[in-house]
Parts: sequence; structure tokens; C-alpha cells
Amino acid sequence: MRELLRVAPGGAVDLAAVDPRSTPGLPGQEVTGPQRKEWTRGQVTLIGAELGRRQEMLFADATARQSARPVGAAAGVDGSAGGGEGAAAAGGADRAGVTGGRRVLLVLQAMDCGGKDGTIKRVAGAMNPLGLHVRSFGPPTAEELQHDFLWRIRRALPPPGYVGVFNRSHYEDVLVARVESLVPESIWQARYDEINAFEREQADAGVTMVKVLLHISYAEQGRRLLERLDEPRKHWKYDPSDVDARARWDDYQAAYAEALSRCGTDAAPWYVVPADRKWYRDWAVAHLLRETFDTLDLGYPPAGFDVRRERERLLGSERTS
Amino acid sequence: MRELLRVAPGGAVDLAAVDPRSTPGLPGQEVTGPQRKEWTRGQVTLIGAELGRRQEMLFADATARQSARPVGAAAGVDGSAGGGEGAAAAGGADRAGVTGGRRVLLVLQAMDCGGKDGTIKRVAGAMNPLGLHVRSFGPPTAEELQHDFLWRIRRALPPPGYVGVFNRSHYEDVLVARVESLVPESIWQARYDEINAFEREQADAGVTMVKVLLHISYAEQGRRLLERLDEPRKHWKYDPSDVDARARWDDYQAAYAEALSRCGTDAAPWYVVPADRKWYRDWAVAHLLRETFDTLDLGYPPAGFDVRRERERLLGSERTS
Repeated sequence: MRELLRVAPGGAVDLAAVDPRSTPGLPGQEVTGPQRKEWTRGQVTLIGAELGRRQEMLFADATARQSARPVGAAAGVDGSAGGGEGAAAAGGADRAGVTGGRRVLLVLQAMDCGGKDGTIKRVAGAMNPLGLHVRSFGPPTAEELQHDFLWRIRRALPPPGYVGVFNRSHYEDVLVARVESLVPESIWQARYDEINAFEREQADAGVTMVKVLLHISYAEQGRRLLERLDEPRKHWKYDPSDVDARARWDDYQAAYAEALSRCGTDAAPWYVVPADRKWYRDWAVAHLLRETFDTLDLGYPPAGFDVRRERERLLGSERTS
Repeated sequence: MRELLRVAPGGAVDLAAVDPRSTPGLPGQEVTGPQRKEWTRGQVTLIGAELGRRQEMLFADATARQSARPVGAAAGVDGSAGGGEGAAAAGGADRAGVTGGRRVLLVLQAMDCGGKDGTIKRVAGAMNPLGLHVRSFGPPTAEELQHDFLWRIRRALPPPGYVGVFNRSHYEDVLVARVESLVPESIWQARYDEINAFEREQADAGVTMVKVLLHISYAEQGRRLLERLDEPRKHWKYDPSDVDARARWDDYQAAYAEALSRCGTDAAPWYVVPADRKWYRDWAVAHLLRETFDTLDLGYPPAGFDVRRERERLLGSERTS
């Protein structure tokens, strides 16, 4: 799947050539009709359980690296990878040594209604929330605007051992910022290189990024927006500005193509997932994550203590009453 | 369940009187034997799905309140409750008005092996990770120690619309801090009132707290620690200091009893959940959360736009090619 959906580094990207209804790499082609959808959903459940196991190994690995605990730790920690956000991240990276504080970061980008929320619910939802680090990026706040565009991104990175999910990301700064002319061209043009440098730096620090464009068609976006209007329980998801952005569809597609082409690197590859079919989308993203975990060669860490001695201490603690 | 498991405000707490293997409030007593466990697990799945629906309503409610979007928002947001941590929280509280920026916060405390991680996996895992805000508290870092004990807690509060989960909490500062004499008695004695004032303040700001002690027996802790030693894949969860803390079991039970007695308030009640049986524990916590959602009287917010007009704009955007 990674080879199949990946944007070739340095290559031109033609999104119009990718059919949003296609299902590249999906096995079980012998299963057809409505059963195909059900079969694929079943596969997502199976892959999800496997993702949960890998997530635990990643977490265990980071916990073991942090086992040199701070003073006063006696009974204050229970295998948790740590306290406050930045603190945990910094502490972990500090003690990680040569191999870095490993973590996985799924970056999700899409046009409105592209399915980011649904993907998070079904794919990230298969993992233990204790080891997940999900962050959504809206328009920058007044405080965020006082810093460079990567400032809020750095603060939102997952600590070692965690699986992070970015619901939108720093790519908004070369997408909406470009299409809506929120900054001068000289500013957004410089950002592609800045993003590549940042992502290279993160890769060196142990962050394995999986950047995914959920690729939907213009027609499918229209259907989904209409569904939000026709279903009162979905009104909260609708925003009139979504139709304004829809009017600039082609500009957005061009901006996506350039971002994927210029920032699809070996350090942080981009994948294009056809997303008109939700069941395929979930399956493809789950599969990409599993393959990414495979490259990490995870395993449970060895005990950092004398197992026999601990067993004796523990058995000696039994009470008769 | 809330009435059944709740610590009466102002009352004395006798943890020894609560059987960790009991299953108060569990219906379906006609189902017995091994089937009882399976039946209860099925109920957790059903309640979990309901929790997911309530969580979405809570999220929708906060999103609607935030609908006065900042400049430049055109296409940058997609129903997400917002950007950086503090930013989202502050922004939401700002615009929430009279009813406050509503959110739910599950606080989990337990002795080692009490089942906090498992509860988070099964109960919080039933909700959408996009709207979850899980935070684990370990021993304070050097930075955290430079501030009062509630500083890191305030920074970890869920933004409006989110369901927060605290894996350990500010209660460690009247538990481990007291039993291990990490601070003088005059310091930890003052903290009960400080905690009550803090929790009252949070309740007024829209935070509905559900504080749960997962109550296990001394014998069950011994079994679970042994399991961690005997299973190499669980070694990462074991820490030799856990046996040291076990030696001070009675001191910890006394510290828990006092914390529950002094900080079980109407604004932020404490619940004691018998937790030797994992399936009952998950069921009870899920049930407590569902009942807590019920008190919030949630519903989907009305549209903040003219639905008919938006429908026309959207249909006018259809392309023929």
C-alpha cells in the first residue's frame, strides 16, 4: 500500500488522474457487490486490533527508555509515559539516546467533507486513547499569529511512545493561506522549504510521519454538504464558508498538488488515498499505519530489573489475613 | 448507579466496608456463572455506543457556541473545536456565556494495578478520539515543581466540548505526597480545601467532574503484580517501587479514605467502584458516565445559518462536467 499510494519524491502530482472512487490495493476482489463493503469493514476491525497491539509496543518501548525515574517517583507513576505535554516530550527525547524517542504521526488533510473526522473515529478509534495524541488545527489564534507558522505545530507533536494524529496541520499554511491570500506569495513560497526542513528535523528526532490526503471528488463533496444541510443533527458540522471554499475548488486542488509534489520526501512521505468510498478510505489509512509500524521493528522491551528477586519480594508481601 | 456508588458529602469513608469483588447495581442477576461476565461486557459495548453519541452532542454544542469564527477562518476549520490546547479552552470559555463551556472530566485514581489503563482503553475507547482529552500524571517534573500543585492540572483541563480523562490527578498530592512525606504535613493538610475551591471553580466554569476510585483488594493487587512478572510482555508495566508502595497499603487506604471524605462534594462527587472484577468495573464506570451525560440535558444545536438559502447556494455550485 505504501508503494501504491505514495507520492514519488520530486515527481509532479496530478490529482485529476487519481479516481476518488477507486480502491487501489484492496484484496478480496473475489468479493463483489454490497458484501465487498462489509468484508472491507471487517478487515478494518482486524487491522485495528493489530494497530492497538503495535501501539502498546511503541508505548512500552518509550516507557522502558524513561525508566530512570525522577526523584519521588516511588508510587506516582504506573507505566505512564509521563506528565505534562511538553514535559513528557522533552523528557523522553532527552533520555532516548541514539535511536531517538520513537513516535508515529498521522497527518490528515482534505477538502471540507473529505472524511478526516470519520477516519479518526474509525482508525485512531481502534487504538488505546491513553497512547493517542490527537490535535485539531483551526484558524490560528491571536497568540499563534504572533509566532512563526510552525510554532503551534511543534507544541502539538506527540511525546515519544505516542501515536499522534493531526486533524489538519502546518499544510494549511500553504493551502488556505495561499488560496485565500492570507499572506503574500513570497511568504507562502518560502514555506515549502521550511516545512521540509522541519519534517527532516522531526524524522531525525524519531517521528515517523504518515501524511495522507483524503482525496474526494467535487461531486462527492456536494453530496456530503447537502447531507449536512438535510440532516438537522449534522447542522453543527456545516459552515456557510464551506461553499465559498468550494467555489475555489480548482485553486485548492492546484495548491494540494504543489504541496504534495514539493513536500513528498523520503523523510516524510505523502500518500493520496481515494476517499469517496468511506470503507476503502478507512481500510487504506489503517493499512498504511500498519505498514508504517512494520518499519519500526517493534518488540516488548526486556525487564530493567531482576525478575526472580522481584518475584520473591512480591511473594514475601502476601498477607494471611 | 450514581446514588449507589457515591461518597456522601461530609460523611466518613470506610473503604474496608466495600467489597472489591461486589457488583452493586448490576442488572441481569438472572444471568449467572461465566455468562454473566459476557453479558456485562456486551452491555459495556452498548453503553459505549451511547457514550459516543452523547460525546458528539457535547462537541456539537461547543462548536456551535464557537461559531463566531476569527478572521481568516474561511476554509480553515471543519467543525473542530479549535487549535492549541489552552487557546481552545480559553476561546471557548470566553464565548460560552451564561451556561459555561460545558465539558465532562473523568478523574481516575487507584492503587497500582487498580485498572486505570484498562478502564481508559475500554470505556474512553468507546468514544471518538477526536473529542477526547486524556492526560496522564506522573511524578512532577522540575518545571512543575516550581509551581503550585494545581498548575499542571489547570493546563491539562479539557477544552469546552471535550470529554477529559485524568489518569491520576491532583489527588496524588494528598496521597503519595502524604504517605511518602514528600511535603510537610502542614502543606498537604491545606490541600484538601484548595482542591475543593479549585473543583468548585471548575464546576462553575462548566466542568462536570466524575471522580472515581477503582477499589481493588490487597490480594488482587498481588495477583496482578505477579502476572506482570510472569508475562514478559508485561514487564514494562512493572516497577520495583510498586512493591514498596504495596508495603504501605494501609497508609494509602487511610489517605484515600480521607481524600474521598473531605473532597466528595456536590460540585465534584467521588464514586467508589469495586474493581477486582474488570468486567464490572468497566460497566460501572461506563454507567456513571452515561448518567452524568443525562444530567447535562444535551441536544444538537440549531443551525446558525439560513438552511434554505444555503441549500440554494450549494445546488447552484453543481458542475455539469
